[in-house]
Amino acid sequence: MSARSDLTDRVLAAKRRLNLKWTTIAAALGSSSPIVYTAALLGQFPLNAEEAAKAVTLLELEPGDAALLMEPPMRGEGIPMPPTDPLIYRFYELVMNFGPTWKQLIAEEFGDGIMSAIDFNMSIEREPDPKGDRVKILMSGKFLPFKRY
Amino acid sequence: MSARSDLTDRVLAAKRRLNLKWTTIAAALGSSSPIVYTAALLGQFPLNAEEAAKAVTLLELEPGDAALLMEPPMRGEGIPMPPTDPLIYRFYELVMNFGPTWKQLIAEEFGDGIMSAIDFNMSIEREPDPKGDRVKILMSGKFLPFKRY
Amino acid sequence: MSARSDLTDRVLAAKRRLNLKWTTIAAALGSSSPIVYTAALLGQFPLNAEEAAKAVTLLELEPGDAALLMEPPMRGEGIPMPPTDPLIYRFYELVMNFGPTWKQLIAEEFGDGIMSAIDFNMSIEREPDPKGDRVKILMSGKFLPFKRY
Amino acid sequence: MSARSDLTDRVLAAKRRLNLKWTTIAAALGSSSPIVYTAALLGQFPLNAEEAAKAVTLLELEPGDAALLMEPPMRGEGIPMPPTDPLIYRFYELVMNFGPTWKQLIAEEFGDGIMSAIDFNMSIEREPDPKGDRVKILMSGKFLPFKRY
Amino acid sequence: MSARSDLTDRVLAAKRRLNLKWTTIAAALGSSSPIVYTAALLGQFPLNAEEAAKAVTLLELEPGDAALLMEPPMRGEGIPMPPTDPLIYRFYELVMNFGPTWKQLIAEEFGDGIMSAIDFNMSIEREPDPKGDRVKILMSGKFLPFKRY
Amino acid sequence: MSARSDLTDRVLAAKRRLNLKWTTIAAALGSSSPIVYTAALLGQFPLNAEEAAKAVTLLELEPGDAALLMEPPMRGEGIPMPPTDPLIYRFYELVMNFGPTWKQLIAEEFGDGIMSAIDFNMSIEREPDPKGDRVKILMSGKFLPFKRY
Amino acid sequence: MSARSDLTDRVLAAKRRLNLKWTTIAAALGSSSPIVYTAALLGQFPLNAEEAAKAVTLLELEPGDAALLMEPPMRGEGIPMPPTDPLIYRFYELVMNFGPTWKQLIAEEFGDGIMSAIDFNMSIEREPDPKGDRVKILMSGKFLPFKRY
Amino acid sequence: MSARSDLTDRVLAAKRRLNLKWTTIAAALGSSSPIVYTAALLGQFPLNAEEAAKAVTLLELEPGDAALLMEPPMRGEGIPMPPTDPLIYRFYELVMNFGPTWKQLIAEEFGDGIMSAIDFNMSIEREPDPKGDRVKILMSGKFLPFKRY
Amino acid sequence: MSARSDLTDRVLAAKRRLNLKWTTIAAALGSSSPIVYTAALLGQFPLNAEEAAKAVTLLELEPGDAALLMEPPMRGEGIPMPPTDPLIYRFYELVMNFGPTWKQLIAEEFGDGIMSAIDFNMSIEREPDPKGDRVKILMSGKFLPFKRY
Amino acid sequence: MSARSDLTDRVLAAKRRLNLKWTTIAAALGSSSPIVYTAALLGQFPLNAEEAAKAVTLLELEPGDAALLMEPPMRGEGIPMPPTDPLIYRFYELVMNFGPTWKQLIAEEFGDGIMSAIDFNMSIEREPDPKGDRVKILMSGKFLPFKRY
Repeated sequence: MSARSDLTDRVLAAKRRLNLKWTTIAAALGSSSPIVYTAALLGQFPLNAEEAAKAVTLLELEPGDAALLMEPPMRGEGIPMPPTDPLIYRFYELVMNFGPTWKQLIAEEFGDGIMSAIDFNMSIEREPDPKGDRVKILMSGKFLPFKRY
Repeated sequence: MSARSDLTDRVLAAKRRLNLKWTTIAAALGSSSPIVYTAALLGQFPLNAEEAAKAVTLLELEPGDAALLMEPPMRGEGIPMPPTDPLIYRFYELVMNFGPTWKQLIAEEFGDGIMSAIDFNMSIEREPDPKGDRVKILMSGKFLPFKRY
Repeated sequence: MSARSDLTDRVLAAKRRLNLKWTTIAAALGSSSPIVYTAALLGQFPLNAEEAAKAVTLLELEPGDAALLMEPPMRGEGIPMPPTDPLIYRFYELVMNFGPTWKQLIAEEFGDGIMSAIDFNMSIEREPDPKGDRVKILMSGKFLPFKRY
Repeated sequence: MSARSDLTDRVLAAKRRLNLKWTTIAAALGSSSPIVYTAALLGQFPLNAEEAAKAVTLLELEPGDAALLMEPPMRGEGIPMPPTDPLIYRFYELVMNFGPTWKQLIAEEFGDGIMSAIDFNMSIEREPDPKGDRVKILMSGKFLPFKRY
Repeated sequence: MSARSDLTDRVLAAKRRLNLKWTTIAAALGSSSPIVYTAALLGQFPLNAEEAAKAVTLLELEPGDAALLMEPPMRGEGIPMPPTDPLIYRFYELVMNFGPTWKQLIAEEFGDGIMSAIDFNMSIEREPDPKGDRVKILMSGKFLPFKRY
Repeated sequence: MSARSDLTDRVLAAKRRLNLKWTTIAAALGSSSPIVYTAALLGQFPLNAEEAAKAVTLLELEPGDAALLMEPPMRGEGIPMPPTDPLIYRFYELVMNFGPTWKQLIAEEFGDGIMSAIDFNMSIEREPDPKGDRVKILMSGKFLPFKRY
Repeated sequence: MSARSDLTDRVLAAKRRLNLKWTTIAAALGSSSPIVYTAALLGQFPLNAEEAAKAVTLLELEPGDAALLMEPPMRGEGIPMPPTDPLIYRFYELVMNFGPTWKQLIAEEFGDGIMSAIDFNMSIEREPDPKGDRVKILMSGKFLPFKRY
Repeated sequence: MSARSDLTDRVLAAKRRLNLKWTTIAAALGSSSPIVYTAALLGQFPLNAEEAAKAVTLLELEPGDAALLMEPPMRGEGIPMPPTDPLIYRFYELVMNFGPTWKQLIAEEFGDGIMSAIDFNMSIEREPDPKGDRVKILMSGKFLPFKRY
Repeated sequence: MSARSDLTDRVLAAKRRLNLKWTTIAAALGSSSPIVYTAALLGQFPLNAEEAAKAVTLLELEPGDAALLMEPPMRGEGIPMPPTDPLIYRFYELVMNFGPTWKQLIAEEFGDGIMSAIDFNMSIEREPDPKGDRVKILMSGKFLPFKRY
Repeated sequence: MSARSDLTDRVLAAKRRLNLKWTTIAAALGSSSPIVYTAALLGQFPLNAEEAAKAVTLLELEPGDAALLMEPPMRGEGIPMPPTDPLIYRFYELVMNFGPTWKQLIAEEFGDGIMSAIDFNMSIEREPDPKGDRVKILMSGKFLPFKRY
């Protein structure tokens, strides 16, 4: 187990022990979205020094953990693909079933390129609906055209 | 090659030969979104009888193709995973890097369940941005709580 | 090993040490089916607070385990696919050999959609038979039609 | 493409061309369940001579196809695993998420053994439900205890 | 590492430390074949209560291990496939090279069905041969015809 | 499709068309076992010149096919592993579940080495049994000790 | 085989038949680098209308091929990974052996982000060296910092 | 976890604890490039005795670690492929999308052979650019022609 | 099927039809070893112009095939790994079982580096032995030390 | 980690701590080749009692380790395939690129059979060469003809 995975486990244990919510933690850390802060504490984003210090305090981590929280992490470490969890798998299924459609429509609108997964933001919201509330996800990524030199 | 894959190839050849756009095709077929119609013609959705007849005419397909276009298709047939195309891969990467985050936040907001990939809709739009236009994706799926009996 | 896997191991050790049966445990926990409670203790369902408290007491777990038992779990964690155990493999084989048949017949009866694995229940019973008792499994999942928008 | 896969494709093309339903085909072939006959025509069961002759006539196949329809087939040929189609995948997911639970409960009730996938039958029915009709699946397989010699 | 794998490791360490042979161990445990008892101690069969008690004594295990030895095990746990060990790989190779032949000949003799791997027994013997002794394996499994309902 | 796979397909088509049994074919070709001749015609063994000539005549193949039947074949070509067919899978399961047991017992009896899959013979017979006939398989392979130089 | 793969095969056959070099072809097509034009003709980049017309003429393709050459292609189609060819494999090996090093050094110099593979250019040159000429590769990709919102 | 992986983890922990940069560490160790020294400390190159001694001192490792730092390492140990981290994946994508192009162009310029990954050097630099700084990578590997004997 | 695979198939068909041996073919083509010429005709080495012309004549290929025989081929195309054929698998097994040993001993004798698979030659001979003739393989590859810059 | 992997790690640690060479260790153990003794200590061959005792003394292992060193090991345990280390990978590449050639030439010289990997010996030597010393590998394996019964 990498040092980062071990830290993630301790973060999750602390959240459980202290009975914290992700939105509470995110609000305590700073101004980025709960997605960014949750991802960061799960090992997918670095925190800045101030955020890391707050996280160490809030989650009662060890002082040395701040440096690790600030490092650009090895993203995707230890996540099974295809996903075994139904919630995560449904997104994988969307990629598998709709991927070529997205390719066609983005190419038609923007030309040859991609939606950046780096200059990217997203939000998740509850969309009330009388037939059953919906998960509303908004993604926005910069279009990056393939450059030719 | 399955009969459906062969049909998809003929659809793409016709679109190229007739110099059609997906949005044009979608507008000609009916009232669903371009994503639905593009996906349908790529073998990921069935068309209804009226839509299928229009598609056969518009794309100069064979009359017998209408029945195949109306069948619930074997979704995901022949699509490589992990995706080899950069545009599609970026979505796969989002699932791999953000999947556990989505799991945590949806569970926190909605409880134990999933976002449906079946009662699901989405749109893709161009979001103008002075720093470079963005691909804006809106997804909305019904929250389905795990039922216990 | 994740905290949840470790808890599952401790649950199994306790069940062995205390010589408990799953049906006994299930009866002690509440009103859901033994399948739900067994799955929950194997890390595939969350328990509610009352059930978790009972499980901690019955299985002599640590007080902090209750919070983990109440979390929506990462389902499918650490289960080998294809299954290596013959009992589980036979179900996998049924999916591989009958899957396209189920697809055809469900589509013929219900149209384009799926049987939900989320709004789903099942039971397992002994079916006495002079030629050898049978395992009788009843599954019932809500039909979810693919929605088009 | 194997001779059997080619035959399956021709069966599906004939069913589409002749606008037949699986239940109609099954009723015409004999007394087994629609699941058995659909599976047989999809290459997962042999037909007997009488059934094969009827199938050749009904589906306007070539006379030589009867012999192939009567051979014990290589089951599972060309079916992707994990399944890419959502309807079939949900069953795969049930195996992955519930497999260890089934193992525990069948072992508790019956002892060390398996549910046979060979001496096995099943049915699929529509279960009316005001909250949305359900797919009701009944499986019954002979319990086979591991023998020790 | 699962509790069962850990127990297997302790069994092997005890066998080594006590300088026991599998045939000696099997003779001490009861009346099944050495294959069954060896497989059981390697985690592929449960022992009954009497056998488990003898095993704990003979192999100087911990008293609590008896319950684990009596549980129907998760078979095939942690065994690499394809096998990396040449002795085991040769059997895998036989399946890969002769499998379709066995399919054809068993189907010709018995019809559509399988040789049970559950109601199954086997023996391994030394077959003296002037050109080099041979490993003689006798397998016998109940023929199970595919049932149609 | 390789030339050999194509030939195998034509062999199977001829067998079906001419309504021949493997045992009939084997008896017509020479003195080896039906397993050897069936395997040879499925592309897993070469025939000698006389046998190949007989096979061409009996199965109404093309004269040029004799040379291909006489070549040492690329064994295992195009056979899916893990096997998808239940009859073949059961043997795979035996290797996965019993492999380490065979390793232990053969090593105990013979020392460090393998059972040859090259100097190997086997037979398949029907073993009458009032509780259901059994498939009886006898394998015999030369023990090959690992040599040290 | 996709329409694009078929076109690539015809491009390669034409290049061989007409005895053309990639640098000659590239010079004839326009002002991008030979890497871009070679990649484009191998199905990894679209050409613009003028380039496509020139390519059709130069390589004696069919008129309808121009439209396909102008489409944003499904990149990476049909390329085996890990690469089986030694020249290509060496690059894969560099990624496998140096990847974490690049991660560390780019993160140290630039912070959390990636080198774009989209806004990317490269050249390959011969670097004369008395000990044996060298392949000199220059890559330049825009640094894209992970954005946080 | 191998001894080498454990050492790498301790190197990373020390770097973090002592707040060192790779360029600082490289400058302290000797005259090779930061890429070589970073790779060496990540387990992809051996150090010489003098460098190893300096590394042990600088990173406050244990004296016995010097011997391990001097051993030719098992390269590529424990690095996931395809890479899960976006920075490393982009290089993998370049190989997948451009590999056949490199093959064609290197073969055209140099003939049948490879770029050595052994007699190889590279550098990474920041390339200032008003549209966004770029990662500039220079690779140089000896061309090795396939020899024929 | 690639143009090269198709050519290989036609080479093998011609060799069979003309009843040629590889050693005869090799002797007719030039002065390299039979291994080189056999590998070349199987698509793993290019021939020079003179050799290609001879091959086209000897094997009665089409004139246009000469150009393809002269191209540096995509090595390893379509060869299954792990090998399914026992003869080829045994070499794979040697790599899997002895690889770390070779690593240790070559590193001890030569230092950090590899045996080149590019500047490499080998021969295969019959080694008469009263206990059974042996396959004697001599490999010789230039040692390439990892360079540090 | 298996007991044998743990022992291998302790062997390697002892070799490092005691600053021993494999050739020194081999000379101390007995009369087999360094390849055999190195492989044995890496877990790929058993030692005899005398050799095991010497190994325990020389490498300062624990007395109980002798029994483990004498057991026929599970070969190939924990070795990644495809190999990630360049030195080992080159051998894998030779199998992938030359395998079919070896098949053809051995079959032509010896008939249908294999080179034994069990009755097998090899040596590795330095072959001085003014253009760069070479790794010379001599392999010799008994030819085993496929037997037909």
